Amino acid sequence: MMIMTEFTAPTIADIRAAAARIAPHARVTPVLGSRELDDRAGAKLFFKCEHLQRGGAFKFRGACNAVWSLSDDEASRGVVTHSSGNHGAALALAAATRGIPAHIVVPEGAVAAKLANIERAGGILHRCAATLAAREETCAKVQQETGATLVHPYADARVMAGQGTIVLELVQQVPDLDAIVVPIGGGGLASGCASALRGLASGARLIGAEPAGADDAYQSLRQGVRVTDVVPHTVCDGLRATIGVPNFALLSEHHVEVITANDDATLAAMRLVWAELKQTIEPSSAVALAALLAQRKRFAGKRVGLVLSGGNVDLDAIPFDGAT
Amino acid sequence: MMIMTEFTAPTIADIRAAAARIAPHARVTPVLGSRELDDRAGAKLFFKCEHLQRGGAFKFRGACNAVWSLSDDEASRGVVTHSSGNHGAALALAAATRGIPAHIVVPEGAVAAKLANIERAGGILHRCAATLAAREETCAKVQQETGATLVHPYADARVMAGQGTIVLELVQQVPDLDAIVVPIGGGGLASGCASALRGLASGARLIGAEPAGADDAYQSLRQGVRVTDVVPHTVCDGLRATIGVPNFALLSEHHVEVITANDDATLAAMRLVWAELKQTIEPSSAVALAALLAQRKRFAGKRVGLVLSGGNVDLDAIPFDGAT
Repeated sequence: MMIMTEFTAPTIADIRAAAARIAPHARVTPVLGSRELDDRAGAKLFFKCEHLQRGGAFKFRGACNAVWSLSDDEASRGVVTHSSGNHGAALALAAATRGIPAHIVVPEGAVAAKLANIERAGGILHRCAATLAAREETCAKVQQETGATLVHPYADARVMAGQGTIVLELVQQVPDLDAIVVPIGGGGLASGCASALRGLASGARLIGAEPAGADDAYQSLRQGVRVTDVVPHTVCDGLRATIGVPNFALLSEHHVEVITANDDATLAAMRLVWAELKQTIEPSSAVALAALLAQRKRFAGKRVGLVLSGGNVDLDAIPFDGAT
Repeated sequence: MMIMTEFTAPTIADIRAAAARIAPHARVTPVLGSRELDDRAGAKLFFKCEHLQRGGAFKFRGACNAVWSLSDDEASRGVVTHSSGNHGAALALAAATRGIPAHIVVPEGAVAAKLANIERAGGILHRCAATLAAREETCAKVQQETGATLVHPYADARVMAGQGTIVLELVQQVPDLDAIVVPIGGGGLASGCASALRGLASGARLIGAEPAGADDAYQSLRQGVRVTDVVPHTVCDGLRATIGVPNFALLSEHHVEVITANDDATLAAMRLVWAELKQTIEPSSAVALAALLAQRKRFAGKRVGLVLSGGNVDLDAIPFDGAT
């Protein structure tokens, strides 16, 4: 059972405050491009390199904003979350910047490279079964025992505001974007970015990219009702979460559209990014390019930002076979 | 038979002129770092990202300088080279910036990803057997037939001067370096960088890093005589060349030292760069980090630049098995 606390969507002021709060700790990530990829897409592509963010994923922004939003008293009791990987590592890193404990509940079957990141950052691992119920139960138990503050991976306004700082940077780095494509799992990144674009009155449209095998956000936003019965089956381990309740509400209100790509297309896109941009990204990052390449007509001649969301790939399990 | 033309080592003025000549075409590549890699090395490491150079390797600098050093008359007859890969692609790209033909003689067995780069850049491929004699013969034939100018991959002062521009950038980007470690094959990169450091009266030492299985430069510089009977056996396909005659002379005069790494260490270092820097580099790039990590004491507490020389790796043949 998830107990929802009151939720207020982040404003542009919240996102600007987040940017100031995380500035001493987070990196301003570079934007890369490639003529070859532009040629393939028939569009001008700008890749925002969040896999070069601290911890190897954009998640550090939201986690860092949440950690530094706490009062000293709250902070002293630490933070807790459940996360299959990048958010857990990000929260552990963020907690370390403030010298407070981070309890990370991880389900069985998480990617080894991501667990190693959590431990390296000093996170305290709590293992549990790979169901949402088991994760939430373990999380609640840790909260009770420690008084730690829950920092949800995506259904959290502070987290969304942190992720939205990507857009503040990107529109500074690249003027006149027509669209920004971001991977969508639980919807924290999309929610923050949509809020930022709205707040900036930007002409750029936000588009979510989702694995076809975990397309609950796609279905939810089309049907106008949160679809929760999708059993995720995708190589994109960072995008298996169900879209969050506030995320669904926010993205619906902003009329954010979701496009999808199957895993073969995503792995082929990942390979393209490795080969052309020379950037080692994880599958969850590649779904944005894959979905864009599947809809070339729609993006023809446009200036498109794509968020490379993370680079914590298990190099022992590079799944290129399906892509060639 | 190789006919040596008169050779004058590049001066700092030549290298500055090269920088101006290539500026409209080449990229100023970024410098990346990682706390994790610093911790492992016990030193502060600055990775100069030449795998993000046009064509995916530093070779574009030298090729571009050579192409734009030609008179209009010379240029109109095109350029020719023999190269197993990155230099060939770089010369084709450079020729394209001037709208002139590039004839690239490639030996059998070259890396597929590199051949594809050459063709993509519009290079005219001439295949030959995988011996130096066959390459030089084919090259000479093309020269006779076309009047094209030979741009040797490393035994060429214009090429060296172009490669030396890396140092001009790096010392601007990172002050107070104690050392710069560069991969060494034929010695063009090392020659250019050594000349630049000498010309700048920099306190940083240039150190070559070479595969233990192709350590002719290491042996040559230790013995004071150019060793040409090493049969290369290494995964570093870009570093199998024998050190060039002028390169040997120049590096001897500058007292450049070479350190080595075996292929297992190089593949492990490549994996580290992929995992920690999220940069897709080729094995030839990783030998610098591998050799440094094998000599931690020597570099302890130092500020060290490392040139990530290229990123044209064949993703179908990622040789991680030996490294884990």
